[in-house]
Amino acid sequence: MQTAKSRYLFYRVIGYLLVILSMFMLLTAGVAVYFNEQSFWSYLTSSLLTISVGYSLVYKGRHDFVLMKRQLFLLTTLCWLSICLFATLPFVLVLPGISYVDAVFETVSAITTTGATVLKGLDTMPRGLLFWRAVLQWIGGVGIIVMAIAILPALKIGGMKLFKTENSDISEKILPRSSSLSLMIGVVYLTMSASCMTLFYLFGMNGFDAITHGMTTVATGGFANYDASFGHFNDQPELLWIASVFMLLSALPLVLLVGTLRGHKWLLLRDPQVRAFLSITAFCVVLLTLYQHHHNDRPLLDALTHTTFNVISIITTCGYASENYAAWGGLALIIFFYLTFSGGCSGSTTGGLKIFRTQLAGLLLIKQFKLLVHPNAVWVQKYGSKPVNDQLLGSVLAFCFIYFASIGALALGLSMYELDFVTALTGAATAISNVGPGLGPVIGPDGTFASLPDGAKWLISFGMLLGRLEILTVLLLFTPMYWRF
Amino acid sequence: MQTAKSRYLFYRVIGYLLVILSMFMLLTAGVAVYFNEQSFWSYLTSSLLTISVGYSLVYKGRHDFVLMKRQLFLLTTLCWLSICLFATLPFVLVLPGISYVDAVFETVSAITTTGATVLKGLDTMPRGLLFWRAVLQWIGGVGIIVMAIAILPALKIGGMKLFKTENSDISEKILPRSSSLSLMIGVVYLTMSASCMTLFYLFGMNGFDAITHGMTTVATGGFANYDASFGHFNDQPELLWIASVFMLLSALPLVLLVGTLRGHKWLLLRDPQVRAFLSITAFCVVLLTLYQHHHNDRPLLDALTHTTFNVISIITTCGYASENYAAWGGLALIIFFYLTFSGGCSGSTTGGLKIFRTQLAGLLLIKQFKLLVHPNAVWVQKYGSKPVNDQLLGSVLAFCFIYFASIGALALGLSMYELDFVTALTGAATAISNVGPGLGPVIGPDGTFASLPDGAKWLISFGMLLGRLEILTVLLLFTPMYWRF
Ligand SMILES: [K+]
Ligand SMILES: [K+]
Repeated sequence: MQTAKSRYLFYRVIGYLLVILSMFMLLTAGVAVYFNEQSFWSYLTSSLLTISVGYSLVYKGRHDFVLMKRQLFLLTTLCWLSICLFATLPFVLVLPGISYVDAVFETVSAITTTGATVLKGLDTMPRGLLFWRAVLQWIGGVGIIVMAIAILPALKIGGMKLFKTENSDISEKILPRSSSLSLMIGVVYLTMSASCMTLFYLFGMNGFDAITHGMTTVATGGFANYDASFGHFNDQPELLWIASVFMLLSALPLVLLVGTLRGHKWLLLRDPQVRAFLSITAFCVVLLTLYQHHHNDRPLLDALTHTTFNVISIITTCGYASENYAAWGGLALIIFFYLTFSGGCSGSTTGGLKIFRTQLAGLLLIKQFKLLVHPNAVWVQKYGSKPVNDQLLGSVLAFCFIYFASIGALALGLSMYELDFVTALTGAATAISNVGPGLGPVIGPDGTFASLPDGAKWLISFGMLLGRLEILTVLLLFTPMYWRF
Repeated sequence: MQTAKSRYLFYRVIGYLLVILSMFMLLTAGVAVYFNEQSFWSYLTSSLLTISVGYSLVYKGRHDFVLMKRQLFLLTTLCWLSICLFATLPFVLVLPGISYVDAVFETVSAITTTGATVLKGLDTMPRGLLFWRAVLQWIGGVGIIVMAIAILPALKIGGMKLFKTENSDISEKILPRSSSLSLMIGVVYLTMSASCMTLFYLFGMNGFDAITHGMTTVATGGFANYDASFGHFNDQPELLWIASVFMLLSALPLVLLVGTLRGHKWLLLRDPQVRAFLSITAFCVVLLTLYQHHHNDRPLLDALTHTTFNVISIITTCGYASENYAAWGGLALIIFFYLTFSGGCSGSTTGGLKIFRTQLAGLLLIKQFKLLVHPNAVWVQKYGSKPVNDQLLGSVLAFCFIYFASIGALALGLSMYELDFVTALTGAATAISNVGPGLGPVIGPDGTFASLPDGAKWLISFGMLLGRLEILTVLLLFTPMYWRF
């Protein structure tokens, strides 16, 4: 029977993921030991529990299997849910006062790289737990996908195709063969992480902060070790600039970074998505810097530093805040609201709509305007140098529709828990886009999600997973249609 | 030369429209005389000025003309602008203290059937001016289109096709031939207006209120004669129910009403758009009635009356308010926000996205979900009993995109004038959708647009025209692609 046989694959994949997760728990235990924290036992316990379940699953799944492609939906969802379930353990064990919903919220927020927090008093939180939050984001950012690449090809499902984004103009010459692409992506991610950590450390962070913030920067996760978020480092503007650069890099397509590292210098700047992304970012930075300079009378350099940092933080869905940008004035508020939906480039660690979807929606618009004037003409739509397939356009627009519909439905759900209009609307948007902060006094850049009712926290946790999963399932399951493998 | 010759058509069409407008000014002068108001001179002056310009234009345009279809864009826009320009005259002449921007805002709000007001003290306003506001909405609601139908066929442009909505399943048997369709549409509009006025009068309004509110109800315009909007009549709930019924009727496709009047009883209930519209309305009414009953402890009947009235008022883009529904609680706020975008059926007097566009976007979504599971299958998408053309789907999605993009851009513009987040966002939405009230303390159902800065008023006026024009130009200019006339 097919169903029974595909079960073996499910056991094996989830089992492997749990074993890997337990390794990171072990690492966290090491960190706790290093800082002389009693709670190292909690990480050790979590690790032992996770590895035993994980290994049992791998053992149960040792038989041959058959998989129908549509089951990848279920497998993907189950992988995320199992990781969330076990990753909750350290929070529950280390913080005895924490409610179960808070532990789940924080875990989901970490693993989906959203970075919304319900924890207060981060400045005095056990180092081990801060490390665990950061590691979860780092895994969530791209590690999960790298793991999927490492596991799925071995299972002959062709997960490698994941990273060939629909729009990339890259020939086989530029990219390495599939077998080494996953390795290259891993190397790029590790290199970026290590460079970011090193620079943070060289420019004044202590070692622990450099490592954790390096991880959450490159994962565009946005968890910080301080209640003031990245604003804790405001007296060292160099750190803000370093973070800005690495958030920007992490929002570029990973395959293009690989290609660039292989010596194709202009690959990035020739990509239409990257160009649009950089232009939008630059435009918002210039506009808001001038607005701040004239409207709030801030010195130009100071305005530039904080505008650059916060604009990049939101458009890349990282979600750090250097200060309460919601107080900058009406124009800033609306722009940050729009940036919440944007997201970075496809094939990066960011969430949100992604730039290429906005571009394709724009292409459709231009086509319709042309049709208005010349009703009988025929155009071939191009993106970069490739013609745009009608099927691709359809899937992109359907994604945009489901994306906004999900945000609408989630905001409706949140409003039932007596959240005000702005909190409900921006809370839904920030959850589905995996950004982190919303707007308004409650969940704005200087607020937390701690005071929300439990029901709202469950809904937002669901929304964060939905945001991450849609994008994954779109990547995983739309791919066969385009490459027919 | 073609351009020179097409100019004659422009003169003639705009001239005719101004002559018709001047007739309504004359009627308003009559109303002022009836109420012994000195200001009747102002309407008379406006009328003389308008008719002389109008007649000169008709005379200048007496020659033969040639028209390229793409010029209809410009013609439509110029028609609206000229009408706005001359319709401003009574406001400027009767209210000497009014600023020019306020006069323009009020005129544009009236003629686009938006119904947002900058005037305070409506209860003591000269009756003539209240009548003028109502007449402008009545003209704007469908009169403008009826005029276009009466003029354009004579000019052999085929404006008749306007009312054959893309989705209608109506054969030639059900509808009359083109030559009498415009007449039938006029008759339906007049019948609805007269019935609404009569019922208002029979159930307790005075004659003047019955006539003006009848006009603004059927036009889904939403101007009331009182600062409390329709809430002035809260002690006569029958009036709220009558208004609800006529707003609902006015949000149905006019051609289907014509067909129904010709004896095809089930035409309306068989139409997929009408069914979806009624279902959405009923769902929101039931949900919010229960919410109000349980959450705000209102008696069930009272809750039902006010929920029905306000939900129908917003979904039909009429924009009356019987009370400050923004104070009903978080759920109500979000639902009213969503209803602002919805709009009624296509081919009605309502603004907004229109129900069939939401339905087609939903069709696309369902198709994509099917493709995820069965990547190689082929489906024929159906709307009602007709297959959905890819070109139609493209134009609908492009419209949705430009609609939301316009709202986004307008909100951005408004935020530059220091409007708060909610005012900027809902002000933009209510302007483009031609609804009327926004949310928040400033422009909410119990507020007015009076306190906004001049720049914001200009922007909103532009937005109201844009909302109306897009829909018109879409109707006017997308039509050739489908019927190739
Ligand atoms: K984030
Ligand atoms: K209206």
